[in-house]
Amino acid sequence: MDIDLELIKSISITSPSRIVLLVLDGLGGLTDPETGKSELETAVTPNLDALTSKGICGLIDPVAPGITPGSAPGHLALFGYNPVTYNIGRGILEATGIDFDLRPGDVAARGNFCTVDKMGMVIDRRAGRIPTEKSTELCKLLDNMAFDDVKMMVRPVREHRFVVVFRGDKLAPEVNDSDPQQLGIPPKAINTITPKAAKLATAANKFVAQAWKLLAKHHPANMILLRGFSQRPAWPTMEEVYKLKPAAIASYPMYRGLARLVGMKCLDTGSTFEEEIATLKQHYDGYDFFFIHVKKTDAAGEDGDFAGKVEAIEQIDSALPGLTGLNPDVLVVTGDHSTPALLKGHSWHPVPILLCARWCRPDRVRKFGETDCATGGLGRFPATQVMPLAMAHALKLTKFGA
Amino acid sequence: MDIDLELIKSISITSPSRIVLLVLDGLGGLTDPETGKSELETAVTPNLDALTSKGICGLIDPVAPGITPGSAPGHLALFGYNPVTYNIGRGILEATGIDFDLRPGDVAARGNFCTVDKMGMVIDRRAGRIPTEKSTELCKLLDNMAFDDVKMMVRPVREHRFVVVFRGDKLAPEVNDSDPQQLGIPPKAINTITPKAAKLATAANKFVAQAWKLLAKHHPANMILLRGFSQRPAWPTMEEVYKLKPAAIASYPMYRGLARLVGMKCLDTGSTFEEEIATLKQHYDGYDFFFIHVKKTDAAGEDGDFAGKVEAIEQIDSALPGLTGLNPDVLVVTGDHSTPALLKGHSWHPVPILLCARWCRPDRVRKFGETDCATGGLGRFPATQVMPLAMAHALKLTKFGA
Repeated sequence: MDIDLELIKSISITSPSRIVLLVLDGLGGLTDPETGKSELETAVTPNLDALTSKGICGLIDPVAPGITPGSAPGHLALFGYNPVTYNIGRGILEATGIDFDLRPGDVAARGNFCTVDKMGMVIDRRAGRIPTEKSTELCKLLDNMAFDDVKMMVRPVREHRFVVVFRGDKLAPEVNDSDPQQLGIPPKAINTITPKAAKLATAANKFVAQAWKLLAKHHPANMILLRGFSQRPAWPTMEEVYKLKPAAIASYPMYRGLARLVGMKCLDTGSTFEEEIATLKQHYDGYDFFFIHVKKTDAAGEDGDFAGKVEAIEQIDSALPGLTGLNPDVLVVTGDHSTPALLKGHSWHPVPILLCARWCRPDRVRKFGETDCATGGLGRFPATQVMPLAMAHALKLTKFGA
Repeated sequence: MDIDLELIKSISITSPSRIVLLVLDGLGGLTDPETGKSELETAVTPNLDALTSKGICGLIDPVAPGITPGSAPGHLALFGYNPVTYNIGRGILEATGIDFDLRPGDVAARGNFCTVDKMGMVIDRRAGRIPTEKSTELCKLLDNMAFDDVKMMVRPVREHRFVVVFRGDKLAPEVNDSDPQQLGIPPKAINTITPKAAKLATAANKFVAQAWKLLAKHHPANMILLRGFSQRPAWPTMEEVYKLKPAAIASYPMYRGLARLVGMKCLDTGSTFEEEIATLKQHYDGYDFFFIHVKKTDAAGEDGDFAGKVEAIEQIDSALPGLTGLNPDVLVVTGDHSTPALLKGHSWHPVPILLCARWCRPDRVRKFGETDCATGGLGRFPATQVMPLAMAHALKLTKFGA
């Protein structure tokens, strides 16, 4: 446990108050040059705006100013875990996301079905994004191989994505990816980065060679690429650190995986925000911390769909009274990073945040948006401080020091 | 390499975009009690103000709130190097600044010609600021001494300042300054701080004794004071960390020295801002990062010349279109520290910063000045984050984490 979590752990207490952390994925944006307004500023959001009047606003940096976070660092920071210290491999993230029963020592890798030409050169890193049904079928073809005492389990994720888990004695994950991250060259051989990973490297190369044979007749999914070989880290749970009973309401595998890694219970839920609120209502008495994940904002941003992101935000705003009606003691609305439609991807821009609680000190912000949040009472601060702030406003942190 | 630079190094990429970092030395100021405006706020700066409308503003702390930085920490922070970790001796700084060919193991010290009375008490630490020509002559007198196997090389810098470099086997720089930093007492004996520095201490004391004899008839420059004994550090270069091809446009030796220590190419340039812009134009295609240093603002501040600093800022503003006309992808305008005319010296006050780029998220600041920058979208932040921000806005940083 790093020193910041140790400090919080030493002063956290259990209480009946409830915290809701609503993460609108990729919330932050950039201004449309025509209007001078971002997606969030363009959206008509009477409910969010009303919350800003009662609450306090600011801007958060998920990792640090200038750093564009992946989804894992963005979320871990919001959960209070320093994303540079608590770094996680892609393989474990995917395996946890599909609820794979990982055992100590297992090594997981993220896989893509891909297309290679007759010379074995990669010509499509995603095999034309084959449907999940097809991928599920092909995973069965590759599942349950074994070389020496190493067993390989293969599970589908979504579309062309799958997970392979290597199980055996004394496996170490320090090998390079086979994914060359570009077209026109063959997949890379999997080599060791440290000598102790030799056993895994051998098994992984044999697995890839065998997969190539087995997939020969399954064009466009006639090869695989592996990356992010990793083992499950032993991290402190949110229950240990915050003494919370935390639950996650998220439908996408990756976010469920992240929540599970910090010890949250993943609730069964539908994928719309209304369904997520229904899940929240159903379990409201059973937990004192809820992480709710909304994907639509990020998806529209990634697609470069400014209007779509505006619409997604407006839909969330419309459904919000279902959530605020529960009167959570602390409600935090923010994002895990910015995904400006103009950039069609994650970005480094700081993310607007709104905290509403009985005990917050309101500021003068009256509209939930990037420009206004920059003048908010919370200032600009690292996302790892969101949880301590939420805990404090829920009166779940005692005094530090004599 | 410290952890912050390691992180940036792991995600930095090469791209055709260009960054210009314009450092107006000692830019920050304090308000004239009559007008309530600082030097920068008093100056008429239509071009800088226009940039604030397109860009984003804030305030930076070069070292930390309350800390008054020297020129070296102020600049190193702007280059992204934590000035507490990357601390540098004055001797090495001066030697690098005059382009002295330092070899591994050399120990350099900064020297002053000074005046002592008949009793050997220091009565002027700068020997009446003798002209550089005189100093050059006296340096020749002191140059090329040797004691045992230690050789001493002496080179003039400016006015009363010079550099002495000690070359020999196994020299360690841990000795105290001979400069007593006050008048009416004799220069201090040079003593070891660690035993391994004994050889250097002996040589340095012999050098000082010999210099006293040789300078006896050269009043007011009839003695020397040494300080900042140090060795050249092995720091990561900006090319290693940022994958940039960086160039410095600066005329003063110290700033050229600092730029060289982080691996910048120092371009030949005239000393006026117009000449510096001409140098920028001439080399614009050869580099993707330019550090431009303007000394006049600091010099006026040090002299307590409020009006002179205002005028210096206005001159820079007038010449600015020559720079902005090149359309750098990212333009940062800031200072290495504040030098308020009212304090006649460096100060701890945070420094206004303006970042202008295609991908910045503009704020509501419309005038480049301390009070307005305090409300800017960048907030108040450590100067070491300027480079990550500039790199991000130039799209030279990839995503961190899965």
